[in-house]
Amino acid sequence: MHLLKTLCQLPAPSGEEATMTRFLLDYVRQHSPSWHQPPLVVHDEARFQDCLLLVFGQPRTAVFAHLDSIGFTVRYGRELVPIGGPECAAGYKLVGQDAQGEIACTLTVEPAADDAETEVLGYEFSRDIEPGSSLTFACDFRETETTVQSCYLDNRLGVWAALRLAETLEHGIIAFSCWEEHGGGSVPYLARFIYETYGVRQALICDITWVTEGVKAGHGCVISLRDSLIPRRAYVERIRAIARAAGIAHQVEVEGIGGSDAKDLQRSDIPWDWCFVGAPEDNVHTPDEIVAKADIASMLALYQELMRQL
Amino acid sequence: MHLLKTLCQLPAPSGEEATMTRFLLDYVRQHSPSWHQPPLVVHDEARFQDCLLLVFGQPRTAVFAHLDSIGFTVRYGRELVPIGGPECAAGYKLVGQDAQGEIACTLTVEPAADDAETEVLGYEFSRDIEPGSSLTFACDFRETETTVQSCYLDNRLGVWAALRLAETLEHGIIAFSCWEEHGGGSVPYLARFIYETYGVRQALICDITWVTEGVKAGHGCVISLRDSLIPRRAYVERIRAIARAAGIAHQVEVEGIGGSDAKDLQRSDIPWDWCFVGAPEDNVHTPDEIVAKADIASMLALYQELMRQL
Amino acid sequence: MHLLKTLCQLPAPSGEEATMTRFLLDYVRQHSPSWHQPPLVVHDEARFQDCLLLVFGQPRTAVFAHLDSIGFTVRYGRELVPIGGPECAAGYKLVGQDAQGEIACTLTVEPAADDAETEVLGYEFSRDIEPGSSLTFACDFRETETTVQSCYLDNRLGVWAALRLAETLEHGIIAFSCWEEHGGGSVPYLARFIYETYGVRQALICDITWVTEGVKAGHGCVISLRDSLIPRRAYVERIRAIARAAGIAHQVEVEGIGGSDAKDLQRSDIPWDWCFVGAPEDNVHTPDEIVAKADIASMLALYQELMRQL
Repeated sequence: MHLLKTLCQLPAPSGEEATMTRFLLDYVRQHSPSWHQPPLVVHDEARFQDCLLLVFGQPRTAVFAHLDSIGFTVRYGRELVPIGGPECAAGYKLVGQDAQGEIACTLTVEPAADDAETEVLGYEFSRDIEPGSSLTFACDFRETETTVQSCYLDNRLGVWAALRLAETLEHGIIAFSCWEEHGGGSVPYLARFIYETYGVRQALICDITWVTEGVKAGHGCVISLRDSLIPRRAYVERIRAIARAAGIAHQVEVEGIGGSDAKDLQRSDIPWDWCFVGAPEDNVHTPDEIVAKADIASMLALYQELMRQL
Repeated sequence: MHLLKTLCQLPAPSGEEATMTRFLLDYVRQHSPSWHQPPLVVHDEARFQDCLLLVFGQPRTAVFAHLDSIGFTVRYGRELVPIGGPECAAGYKLVGQDAQGEIACTLTVEPAADDAETEVLGYEFSRDIEPGSSLTFACDFRETETTVQSCYLDNRLGVWAALRLAETLEHGIIAFSCWEEHGGGSVPYLARFIYETYGVRQALICDITWVTEGVKAGHGCVISLRDSLIPRRAYVERIRAIARAAGIAHQVEVEGIGGSDAKDLQRSDIPWDWCFVGAPEDNVHTPDEIVAKADIASMLALYQELMRQL
Repeated sequence: MHLLKTLCQLPAPSGEEATMTRFLLDYVRQHSPSWHQPPLVVHDEARFQDCLLLVFGQPRTAVFAHLDSIGFTVRYGRELVPIGGPECAAGYKLVGQDAQGEIACTLTVEPAADDAETEVLGYEFSRDIEPGSSLTFACDFRETETTVQSCYLDNRLGVWAALRLAETLEHGIIAFSCWEEHGGGSVPYLARFIYETYGVRQALICDITWVTEGVKAGHGCVISLRDSLIPRRAYVERIRAIARAAGIAHQVEVEGIGGSDAKDLQRSDIPWDWCFVGAPEDNVHTPDEIVAKADIASMLALYQELMRQL
């Protein structure tokens, strides 16, 4: 879990993923020689901004894992505006930096003066922070025999699973995307490149979902039948059949809300089939996201099997 | 109206349109030899998923009719989540099937425990239904001298009108789309294929709209000047002029809400001109949608004229 | 400011930009011979609807300025529905025309019968107006030594700045877009054409933003670090560095709401870098929008510098 801890500590809120991208490029350069087969590394800022693609063999399916995280942007007068949809509780530790140096401050949450139902976010710190600075949760990485807990398991755990998948992958594409937490914006061009270059139109969304009354921690990786969007049923059923036949622990999710990089696939002018497949977490979008190790293991096993069979 | 009844009875909620697609393929195979001219049938799951295109002559205009309907997905603990935006009244009859067999159950609607303004949807049935199963309204097709009434006239009546239009069509494309009721997702690639292959960038949205204080049942097919989106005025005015000159009964609609497959055309990277043209219905998105036969007749007549002149 | 006044007076609500387009075509034809270099004028209704592109030299960056304005569409029974998001106060003067002639009427605002929080918009006029007619604010253009005030400075001032920029531009594209106030719809195809024809993927959004507690009238043109969307930070920082080095008065904006033509760039399948750069106004989306002349001057100066250096 050392790699996962490192990933969780790297700041990369939506729009500022470059730090994560550089880390991954280094990681792949260093480790891919020992993988089953080294991938083609596609990275070109002019064409893919801060995204990164790993292409293995003759790909039939693409795995999308987003690099970015939720966070906060400093506004004026000590106010903060959210990046994506963070849970906000007074006292959360936030970190960042501006021209004056390192920042380690505390989140404040107060009702708006004119509307008790709206909250105003702010920070407590020894000085004013330069407007436009980004803040992310301070990482407190915790591990037990059965769980990992940290901010940003969504989606550093998805990135981690994709990197572990890469170790043995024969055929497939791993696409590391940007801006997922804040409305998307990179999957459209990644998807177009992948389709036009490789003819691939099958996708798996390698991301973290929610523990709910129907999805239990420790009961296996989730195959999502729907969230706010509905994937084509025929594709999802193929995935369920593969999971069942392989005897890999898994559970199905049925939600009416929530979304993922799949939104950009569904809206694209390419006939993507897609399915969200990922471990569930509790304490979603807080500094205390927690995932059962059993679900991480089944997530990786399921991805390995799916990439062989789809 | 036998064909319309059959169409209304086929289950095809968003994401599971394949049953409808297979029916249409059979129907076209069987009936197109007797049409004015047989179309080119474009259907290829790898490129168009469950969509279907009929191409006639040298097309200048494309007609989009969506195949899918609203419905419900079974969640956990006897809860339902909506597919699209169904009206929900306790007691509506729902049908479907899961691994244990046929389902005929009843919709329940209750206030949420924690928020009286939110409704929780559920079902009453003799057994639990497998999570992820889809349910649709049970079809009770009713016909009088002047009206038809059923669930899913939106948009099986649009599909019906498109099939009747096909009987005499010389030049044009009929595109049967998916996912319209649940945010879209197929029109982007259909539109791209149509534009790139045929250079067509004029569209008519063949769908059913609402009876309102300004749109009366029996007063003719609706030409929509706007809903939540605003089409280019110049194109809409051409359509109005054709309708007037042909002496076909019609009325104009002006709304600030609502949408259609046109959303995906408006957002696309192709300069589509589009206009919604369709009969109005009352009891929208219930099992009791009702349309005046006079408006069906004027809808078909208007499409025939528009496809000749646009 | 004579040109700006003319632009503010021309009616061009979203979907009906053609009047503005014709004016610009005439203006460019008349004035471009005296510009530093005449641009290639790209205008073809079949490919670009009512949009217009001016291409100078070897472009590296595209400037997007939207032509359309907010307004109202006449519904039934003397009701109005908004085009875009106008501020609505009873008594605002509205103008338009229908088949019966010129219209000069007054906006009415009343609580909905069934919901005190919803407003019903209407008009007072000596006769009924034909449903579907568009109304826009009556233009009362006011100028002082330090300010200009009128309806539709958003975005006729952006259009004006783009035309003044054109006078000295060596390399770059100016794209006049449609539908920005009502959800967009032209930038996707403009962006695609620009990228595929010229390889350009850097954008500046030439539009008007808001005076807020952090953005003051008269303190210089705004460089927006974010609104509801977050641009790639690396690009925005390049723009800030150019502004600082050139010593041009400017201020930064950090918001969690609001949007612009950038939405369509962010969602596109092209890796656009974009940044909103424009003067701030007070009384946003009213007939009394007001902008400091100093901010107009710094907006133009900043665009000139950015187009040289980006």
